[in-house]
Amino acid sequence: MNPAAPRQVTRLIEAFSRLPGVGPKTASRLTYYLLRAPEVESVELAEALIEMRQGTRLCSRCFNITSIDMDPCLICSDDGRESGSICVVEEPLDVLAIERTGLFKGTYHVLHGALSPVEGIGPEDIRVEPLLARIRSGGVEELIIATNPTLEGESTAMYIKQEIGESGLRVTRLARGLPSGGDLEYADLNTLSQALQGRSEL
Amino acid sequence: MNPAAPRQVTRLIEAFSRLPGVGPKTASRLTYYLLRAPEVESVELAEALIEMRQGTRLCSRCFNITSIDMDPCLICSDDGRESGSICVVEEPLDVLAIERTGLFKGTYHVLHGALSPVEGIGPEDIRVEPLLARIRSGGVEELIIATNPTLEGESTAMYIKQEIGESGLRVTRLARGLPSGGDLEYADLNTLSQALQGRSEL
Repeated sequence: MNPAAPRQVTRLIEAFSRLPGVGPKTASRLTYYLLRAPEVESVELAEALIEMRQGTRLCSRCFNITSIDMDPCLICSDDGRESGSICVVEEPLDVLAIERTGLFKGTYHVLHGALSPVEGIGPEDIRVEPLLARIRSGGVEELIIATNPTLEGESTAMYIKQEIGESGLRVTRLARGLPSGGDLEYADLNTLSQALQGRSEL
Repeated sequence: MNPAAPRQVTRLIEAFSRLPGVGPKTASRLTYYLLRAPEVESVELAEALIEMRQGTRLCSRCFNITSIDMDPCLICSDDGRESGSICVVEEPLDVLAIERTGLFKGTYHVLHGALSPVEGIGPEDIRVEPLLARIRSGGVEELIIATNPTLEGESTAMYIKQEIGESGLRVTRLARGLPSGGDLEYADLNTLSQALQGRSEL
């Protein structure tokens, strides 16, 4: 036991340290910041943590995070969204990123992962069967596969495409190329190759 | 209201964003990490937050953070520590940093701030009077002033030295091995150890 800090303090430092990207020094700083800050700040964070875990669920249609009393989720139950267009992403955070563009008016499907033989993640470990079921039930016209531009994301896209087979469904993939604001000389070989192959008329 | 994330999620993102050094992107990442992680991780963090605020108090002697049922604190009530030697620091985190060197066997006094005319922080806003009272009550032989090597920290050191006057008390200051303008809690172990060993008469 560290005599310089009571166990109540070290317990919080340890809890913060378990978060990704938070080392022991950052965890200490956050803890001692909260000790000085008004108590309501710690209480609000604590209540938000509990409410987030106990007040949410996965949407039974798209598997995005939704409020526990809102199933299907706000996007799935919005008549203004085109339910015939489904954007397939790996994680709920990806939905937020695509929503920020303001360009997509369809619905989503969150896989909660990507295929990875190395990590032993197969089709049964991600929400791919419910996606195929949504397609089989009809009404879907376009599938935008927005998995990550990684080996795992590409494998997942290919797997979905293959499972759908010849169905007349339009299946697209997000464009690969140079990131906006990037520098050509720092682009890696793959990115530059794909940017060249996917070049468009000016 | 963001349809892509329920209010339970945005509430936690906002609570994390209020922490120092945590931007909205980091706050989102932490939140979605906790959504995936076992529920016990969120619950443990929430309980640690509450316990830290409700289970701690300031030691009535040195003003360091202590367990609510441990006053004076573990260091102040340890007979093995030299109570005649007091190390004066600005914040509780500074006690942790000095304890890590393992070189100091005395006790502490936490000021909870430093004098700053610019920010309107005067002697009555920090715990300097209780320190002078400890000295007046006798038994103190050495005062190591370990305030930060900043303008505010130096002013605080000079103020304390001046208030003590000609008392025969040995008053030292950490050696300026510390990088000027830095912050004590970020000092590496070596720098801090050297600063302790090279302390000089004020």
